[in-house]
Amino acid sequence: MYKCSLERMTDKIETFSKFGDAGHGGITRYTLSPEDNLARKEFVKRMEAIGAVIETDDMANMYATIPGSDPDAKRIVMGSHTDSVMNGGNYDGILGVMSAMEVLEAVVEQKIPHKHPLTAMVWTNEEGSLYPPAMMSSGVICYDYLPEAIRGKFKLEDMLQSKSILDFKTTFGEVLDKSEYKGDKANRLSPEKYLNMFEIHIEQGPILEDNKKDVGVVDCVLGMFNYRLKFYGQTTHAGTFPMPKRKDAFFAASQALVYLHEEIDKLGYPELVYTTGEVICHPGIHTCVPDFFDFSFDSRHEDPAVLDQVLAIVKSCADKTWAGCTCTVEKAWNRDTVYWDEKLIGYCEEAAKETGVSYQLIHSGAGHDAQFAAYMMPTTMLFVQSKDGLSHCEDEYSTPEHCTSGATVLLNAVLKADQAE
Amino acid sequence: MYKCSLERMTDKIETFSKFGDAGHGGITRYTLSPEDNLARKEFVKRMEAIGAVIETDDMANMYATIPGSDPDAKRIVMGSHTDSVMNGGNYDGILGVMSAMEVLEAVVEQKIPHKHPLTAMVWTNEEGSLYPPAMMSSGVICYDYLPEAIRGKFKLEDMLQSKSILDFKTTFGEVLDKSEYKGDKANRLSPEKYLNMFEIHIEQGPILEDNKKDVGVVDCVLGMFNYRLKFYGQTTHAGTFPMPKRKDAFFAASQALVYLHEEIDKLGYPELVYTTGEVICHPGIHTCVPDFFDFSFDSRHEDPAVLDQVLAIVKSCADKTWAGCTCTVEKAWNRDTVYWDEKLIGYCEEAAKETGVSYQLIHSGAGHDAQFAAYMMPTTMLFVQSKDGLSHCEDEYSTPEHCTSGATVLLNAVLKADQAE
Repeated sequence: MYKCSLERMTDKIETFSKFGDAGHGGITRYTLSPEDNLARKEFVKRMEAIGAVIETDDMANMYATIPGSDPDAKRIVMGSHTDSVMNGGNYDGILGVMSAMEVLEAVVEQKIPHKHPLTAMVWTNEEGSLYPPAMMSSGVICYDYLPEAIRGKFKLEDMLQSKSILDFKTTFGEVLDKSEYKGDKANRLSPEKYLNMFEIHIEQGPILEDNKKDVGVVDCVLGMFNYRLKFYGQTTHAGTFPMPKRKDAFFAASQALVYLHEEIDKLGYPELVYTTGEVICHPGIHTCVPDFFDFSFDSRHEDPAVLDQVLAIVKSCADKTWAGCTCTVEKAWNRDTVYWDEKLIGYCEEAAKETGVSYQLIHSGAGHDAQFAAYMMPTTMLFVQSKDGLSHCEDEYSTPEHCTSGATVLLNAVLKADQAE
Repeated sequence: MYKCSLERMTDKIETFSKFGDAGHGGITRYTLSPEDNLARKEFVKRMEAIGAVIETDDMANMYATIPGSDPDAKRIVMGSHTDSVMNGGNYDGILGVMSAMEVLEAVVEQKIPHKHPLTAMVWTNEEGSLYPPAMMSSGVICYDYLPEAIRGKFKLEDMLQSKSILDFKTTFGEVLDKSEYKGDKANRLSPEKYLNMFEIHIEQGPILEDNKKDVGVVDCVLGMFNYRLKFYGQTTHAGTFPMPKRKDAFFAASQALVYLHEEIDKLGYPELVYTTGEVICHPGIHTCVPDFFDFSFDSRHEDPAVLDQVLAIVKSCADKTWAGCTCTVEKAWNRDTVYWDEKLIGYCEEAAKETGVSYQLIHSGAGHDAQFAAYMMPTTMLFVQSKDGLSHCEDEYSTPEHCTSGATVLLNAVLKADQAE
């Protein structure tokens, strides 16, 4: 049983929080931006300091590898991403990179015997916050292994053409070509070269905190669907058009949203979540009745039969008239539940027990690069307790102790995987 | 009893509809844009053709004047605006300018005797759609006469600094300085030089059509208030945060909007209107629970006591918690009901009766330049029937016959005003 270093982990958290520091507790660190390059440079510096060899692939994914005792053994990889959303926090993504670094540092410092080479990895552009979509480079790298329904979104040529949401001009491909971290396609993560994969992430929810558990051993990434509900009315002047004749698309959408909550909550599934986070209102003028309102509807649950029940309620909105408006319900995408590798889950559980870190099994509601990797090699994830369950915001916080406990479980789980094959 | 020309009016409607033609039935004609300048040029051409003298003032308002028999008499002015909203229709504003032109053309062609000089006027930037606020130059010209609560919005130096909503850079003052229509402050509309004012506008509502009336004789512009309702929640990740702990600001706003409709409709005032046309949702990402939602609330009614009852309901939203979110209710502005001049209303009614044009008394829910002019001279308005009550959109339509009937009533009402003093 080995332990990671609280002091070294704390130092990494403090150091990486400076790269993209937005000045009020959080960071903005878009992929391949100058801020992201500072984080990548720090990754290289610290990994070279322990003798790791750095490789990069054609998507600027980075791999820092220390050798194992068997020169022919496949590598075990741990990693996550360095990029963030706008005004994000100091843990989402980067914690998985720091934990992988910490494991390698602990192995080198404590001279822990191991057979397989161990790799700490940085995925490029997981958030997709400047160049959509999210999970871009894992989508590209795992392309041949992804289910047909998912892979269409991640064609390399489309990814390279993805335009900055800030200037609507710069493409991801242009930025990638200029990056000193763009490397050789031959260096890509692949099942020929890598045995299995681990990713640590903050929970992004309050379950571990509520249950007083330091760490979550993740068993699956929840299945989900994403739809758009669109309401069509008629715009008229705010001051002149009698109420009974109006067709107000915002009022229509509000009625439908209240209906959705009522009906879906009646289903009574405590683990079901659904979110309506993005809205469009046209023409969006205070003196005009809205003639169009559109909102996103994202729902997640492990059981596809539960999602089917929710979807039936969502679709029923199109059968009704809302405040005189018609409604259409359009599919954006969906994905099935991805289960992690049972053996790797077992190693994580054993590692937590042996190191005395409190844990529970937990589902992941969010998507992560690891879930695409799972289509090409055995993969699993660990979660670290999040304060108040907040993420994608500056209030995001996990204690250095919890972060270090996560790395300790990761270290010991990786060593179990190392010894098993 | 005199009549205006259907043929001449139809020609004007067809001609002016070309200036800013957006290609699918409507126009985009921002103030002082190349498209607006085409309309202004046509105005000058047609008015000079009947011998009118053209003047412009320092806000680029335009005045085309034909003399009356008394060289010392004050002028009677009719007018509206040539600018439009984005993808607006062919009638809002420009109908008032065309009707004023038509009246002058009829007077000259039919050699109708009149004592006072008659002026057709173009107001600059009534819509404020590129350079806010709306009714900008009537606000500036009538500044000294406006109630304290209104005038603060229309300081000349602020208006000149108003920035384009398209490039966030160009100021209204820059565009005004470059305009060939910027003239002398001494030419401004004023009670010293002008006896009274008339404005024709499309109804922008369905009342005249429903009641089968060609024309509306407007008795007042409704009092109104405009508030913002703001909902504060907590953003969290869509996939990971349990429903009962969420504070979703969009859901909160939807509940409040449904509540507002229920409570306000219980008041039972058929002429009351209220509109929630502008919304802001933050962060507006489909994978995040919204932590902030803000919508405008605009309500209009003749009776301030009715508006007070509505406002009490609106304000009560701040006393409740909505889906775990707090709510604030903030005043943007309000205005009292503006009553038109009784004598001028009488002339319009008599003129309608004498010319056999069907009419009814009607309130104006929308704001118009004439309502600011009303603070400095006797003023009134006429409405022309709108198809389906639509306006500020490309479907906006009034028949040439209704437009000509409106001009005929205007002509005869102006002649009554001419003879009265």
